[in-house]
Order: sequence, then C-alpha cells, then structure tokens
Amino acid sequence: MTTRISTRTTTRIEADQLADLSSGAVLLATGGGGDPYVSYLSARQTLTAMGPVTLLKPEALTDDAYVVAIGGVGAPSVGLELLPSSDEPARALAAFEAHVGRKIDALVSFEVGGGNSMIPLIAGASSGLPVIDGDGMGRALPEAQMMTFPIAGVAPTPALALDYAGNTATFSTDSTATYERHVRAMAQAMGGMILTVEHPMTGAELKRSVVPETISFSIELGRVLRERRGNAEALIAPLRAAFADSIYGELRHLYTGKIADSASQVIGGYDVGRVRIESFDEAQPDLLIDIRNEYLVARLAADSEDEGRVVSSVPDLISLLDLETGAPINSERVRFGQRVAVIAIGCPDFYREPRALAVVAPRCFGFDFDYVPLEALPAP
Amino acid sequence: MTTRISTRTTTRIEADQLADLSSGAVLLATGGGGDPYVSYLSARQTLTAMGPVTLLKPEALTDDAYVVAIGGVGAPSVGLELLPSSDEPARALAAFEAHVGRKIDALVSFEVGGGNSMIPLIAGASSGLPVIDGDGMGRALPEAQMMTFPIAGVAPTPALALDYAGNTATFSTDSTATYERHVRAMAQAMGGMILTVEHPMTGAELKRSVVPETISFSIELGRVLRERRGNAEALIAPLRAAFADSIYGELRHLYTGKIADSASQVIGGYDVGRVRIESFDEAQPDLLIDIRNEYLVARLAADSEDEGRVVSSVPDLISLLDLETGAPINSERVRFGQRVAVIAIGCPDFYREPRALAVVAPRCFGFDFDYVPLEALPAP
Repeated sequence: MTTRISTRTTTRIEADQLADLSSGAVLLATGGGGDPYVSYLSARQTLTAMGPVTLLKPEALTDDAYVVAIGGVGAPSVGLELLPSSDEPARALAAFEAHVGRKIDALVSFEVGGGNSMIPLIAGASSGLPVIDGDGMGRALPEAQMMTFPIAGVAPTPALALDYAGNTATFSTDSTATYERHVRAMAQAMGGMILTVEHPMTGAELKRSVVPETISFSIELGRVLRERRGNAEALIAPLRAAFADSIYGELRHLYTGKIADSASQVIGGYDVGRVRIESFDEAQPDLLIDIRNEYLVARLAADSEDEGRVVSSVPDLISLLDLETGAPINSERVRFGQRVAVIAIGCPDFYREPRALAVVAPRCFGFDFDYVPLEALPAP
Repeated sequence: MTTRISTRTTTRIEADQLADLSSGAVLLATGGGGDPYVSYLSARQTLTAMGPVTLLKPEALTDDAYVVAIGGVGAPSVGLELLPSSDEPARALAAFEAHVGRKIDALVSFEVGGGNSMIPLIAGASSGLPVIDGDGMGRALPEAQMMTFPIAGVAPTPALALDYAGNTATFSTDSTATYERHVRAMAQAMGGMILTVEHPMTGAELKRSVVPETISFSIELGRVLRERRGNAEALIAPLRAAFADSIYGELRHLYTGKIADSASQVIGGYDVGRVRIESFDEAQPDLLIDIRNEYLVARLAADSEDEGRVVSSVPDLISLLDLETGAPINSERVRFGQRVAVIAIGCPDFYREPRALAVVAPRCFGFDFDYVPLEALPAP
C-alpha cells in the first residue's frame, strides 16, 4: 500500500497525545460523536502495544489510493453501555476487504467526535494503516448524508456493518440518504451501536471532500483545554484565538448558567432531546438547546413561549463546557444542575455552500427557519 | 449444474397449472404468504415466455447440490401496494451468486403461501433453475427461525435482500433468530417488502429438513377448490379426503359465520390483528382469530371476556374460505361482512417435535397456553 502514499506530509500520533485529541474532538463534536472515554482507553492500549499511528495530510495520498471511512453508528447513549472492543475495528476492516476484494490504503474518520475520533486510530494501529488528518464533517452530525464525502459525490457503498457479536451486514445503494435509512435500521436491530466501514473513495475524491487537519487541530484544542483547565470562562480567550486561525473562524461565548432541565429519548436510533439552561442573572431569558445526537440549535426562550430568538444553529457548532473544569460535555452526559458555559463557533466554508446546506440546514432537522451564519446573528 | 440432479423424480410446472397452485397454496398459507394475484400474473407471464419450470422431488438432488430458499419478506398488506417485478427474483439470485462466488443448483420456497409459492417459480423460469417440490414450512409462518431448515440446523447466511429499487444488503450471522431481526429491520427500511435469498444448504440438508411435495399437493388442492367452486360447505368433504391422504391429516370444519370485526396494524414489520366472526346461529359464541401475518389461534369467545376456549392453534393450520365461492381468504383481505367457513387442519409431524415446538408453539407468539394437537381438542 505504501506505493500509494507520499512520505511527505506525514506525522505520527503517539499514545500520549490521545488525551488531548479526545478532549479537543469532544469540543468539535458539538455534543455528539459518542462518549470518548472507553474508546480513548482502548486506543491508548492499542497504540501502546502496537506503536504510533501514521497521520497523513490529505495531499500525501496519491489520486488512486483507496480510502474508507470508519466509525460508530448509533445512539451515543447506547454507546455508554454497549462498550466497544479494541479488536472490532480491525475485524470490520478485514471483513470489508474480503467483501470488496481489495486492500485499503488509508482510513478517515466520519466525524471528528469523541469515540469516532478514536475508532480510526484503533483501526490504524491494529491494522498498520495510516489515518488521514481530517474528517468527513469537521464536527459531528447525526446522519450519513450530512458528511462532506457524499455531498461531494462519493457513493456510500460498498459498506459493511459489524455488531458486538461479530455479525456483519453489507449494503449496496447509490444514495447516501437511502444508505442512512438502511444502516440506521441495522444499527437498531444490531443492538443500538455498530461499527461501519463505508464511503470508499479514491485519494482524489478524498482530497476534494475532506475537512482537513481536524485531527491535529483537535490535539491543539485539547492542549489548550488541558493547560487552561479549571475555569471555562478563562478558556474562552485562548480558544477564540485558536479558532480564529483555523477553518472555523469566529467563536462566541453565548451563555453561562445551570442546567435546569434535560430530557432525551432514543427515537428512531437517535438521541433526541432538549436542554434548558438558566442564567445566574435572573433578568436573562433561559437558553434552550435542541439535540439530535448533537446540539443543533440554541435559542433564547421568549417570555410567553418556548421558542424564541435563535442565537446559533446547525451547521455552525454549539458546545457546552463544564464551568468548573472547562471540559466539553457530550449531549448524553448533560445532567440537571451542571454549571456550564455555552459557546458557538462558525463552521468550515464547505458547509455554507448551497449543496451542503441542502442537507444540513435547520430545515433538514425539522426546524422552521433558515440558516443564518453565526457572525450575522446578533449576539445574545 | 445438471450433474448434481438426478433425472428420476422430476416433473414440470406449466403456466396453466399456476392458478390451481396459487389457490391451493393460499389455503395452506393460513392467511399469510402474501396475496398471490400479482405474483400469479407475473409467474404466468414468465412461464409462458420462458417455458415450464422443472419441479424436483427432494430425493432427486445429490447430497452435494447447492440449494437456496427464495421468497418475499415483509408485511403482506404492504405487498398489496408494493407490487413485485418479474425480473427481481433473477436479479436477486444473480446478486447472491456474485456474493457467495458459486452457482446455485436448485431453489426452494420458504413457505407454501400465495406470493411465496410463485416467487421461486418466477426465479426458476427466468434463471433456468429447478424448483423443489416442497417448502420450509408446509404452511406460512411469520418468522424465519420457524422454518424447518433452521430447526434442522441449516445456518441462515450468507443471505441477500433486494428491494424494489434494486438496492441490496447481505447478512452474516449463525443464528436464524438474529437473522430474522436483521432482515425484518431491513424489510422495514427498504419499504416494507423485500426479496431474500437465504438459508443456503446442501442437497443432504434439504432432504432431511424440507416439508415434501407441498407444491404438487397445492395443485391438487387448487383443483378441488376449482372443481367444487360455489359453496364452501360442499367443499369440506373433498378437502377432508385430500388432507386425510396427506402429511397433514385431520381437517375440521370449525365454524361458519360473518366477519363482525377485523382490525389489523403493521407493527414491527408484521400485520398484527384480530378477527371476530359471528355465527348465523345466535346461540353460538363468536369465534375470535388472532393474526400475525397468519391466522394463529381460533378461540370461542366466552360470555364475560374475549378469550375463551381454544379450538385450534399454531402450528396447526387455520384457514378461512369465502362461503359463496369457497376461495381461501388471506388475512390482509378479510373485511367486515364477509361470510366465511373456518377450517382447521393438522400440521406435518415435523412441527409437532419438541425442537420445532420450541420455536412455533403458541407461547412463541405471546399466547399464555400450550399447544394441544387439533385431534386432541374438543370440537367447537
């Protein structure tokens, strides 16, 4: 496989970088992507045993390289109980290679997000494959057709799913929206959380669709979170500086308060819910955040009704930081009484193009309003 | 492939035998198996164009022949609207052969039932493959693990599903109960009704598990239904004589009356419902029939409650005949006001063995009573 990869522009991820990568990726995952803790432990064990993983800049791939996306599909809340096994990613890759009858050259993350940032590294370390510095969302989003790969024209299949018991299924369809319906049904039938290998693509296709450098940027964000640990509000300035130099752009501190209510259910294989946050300043309206695996929309509650002024919405990023530690909080971990800072961050330009907004704008999630970029919204 | 099949014990099914086969199979299907009408038209067209299908007695197969079961999976009510295409069975077989990398020698029906008796014939005529005179249920039943093949130890996979749009999925698991969960989820995600190719087996495995001669017996039943057309009650005696000489045994005329209520919903990919029949004799209690795709249990309603004395239950057969025409009525076709005769028939001995009752007894469908063979129940 090495003939398809240039040795320029490669670095390595060592086991001791995984903690920073994990916490930075949770910040970018906007509440989704799955809890990283068990995946982090599994990745640390695998990289310690097998050695570091080669991290490739997208341009290191030759145009004819064969790349696949790998990660977990399901409701993140199920992932808290249905724990991943560190040998599953390599088994999924082997089953996929047997299915398609060819060798994989490199791996890429669906999404930069807790568990889903770790799974490609576990797969890479145990199978000896390099991992791309980048991902298919630049954040986490709940459905497959919302990835940059299909938006840029990559077909979703051949694709393979592996469940906790070693059962597999394969899929063949041209439409990623259809694939999403099929794979989501299988995720539910296979226990609520599965591993998939999907969206096989050439190096050329990857280079024109991937959100670049999000793995190395997560490590940088994780370093900021660790070095400034202890106070979310003191973190805002260094985080803002880091994002200002990135493909994301502006970071806004939307709100500070206490979780007054958090309700979610597993509906159709997703965590669906809403969080209400009360300000410490009684004069301020509550902040409401709608969830579908990820934090999708933040609104200031109106006096007479629940649905007030939008202060940030998908595809821009919304994240919750624990007020005392600064640690980002995944949506399935939000609990009554937590004190949090809420931040919003612009999304990569790819997601502001019409072809992307056609599948990720608020209306795609059932909201009755159009997307307005964070910078164009009045601050709360 | 002909080297794996003896020329002894083969006959042919011609297009003009399909009408009898179809109506006889609906009688054996106990309300399930899918409406045969469109499949019948499709089979007639295919056999007229491609010629007759070779019907093989199971003993005609050599022990190393490669046989697959093929049919429709889903809610029969969906099949009324999502019409089958006559080229789909051949496409499903071709996709299956590509998936497993070997040629199929013969086809067998999951179940002798309306649409599911026609699909293997369409597949056989269009692909040139012979079809076994027999099936995997000797009737219709709603779940894959209830087939004789898995009960006798045949693994469900490799298996393949094809949907109306040409999308496919494959499955790999050792457990037919797990396969049933997976394929049922895909049937729902793929529009409610799919074609599957599954339970690949050797000739030796087929010979020790198939319910034999049910296709030719359906043609014989269909002939009786056609020749005595016009009065269900006059049909009882010749049908009783036909069953008495078969692997089924006793036929009982349970009830005659009018459909007073029929309610069903698609739940979890099945048609689930209940029918209430009122006797023309007001002194007689109503008859209640519970449905899960098939008619499962017939009970005489008690005065004070709905659930009275069981007069027949799964795995024995329950069928409804239109009182005026004698035509068997599928569960998705039952309507208020229809006048019907209800008959019950013993099941093949295979289904009265403990290994079969472990998966098809009334308790497997949630009923709180044990199976008692028809002959041991007091007549209504």
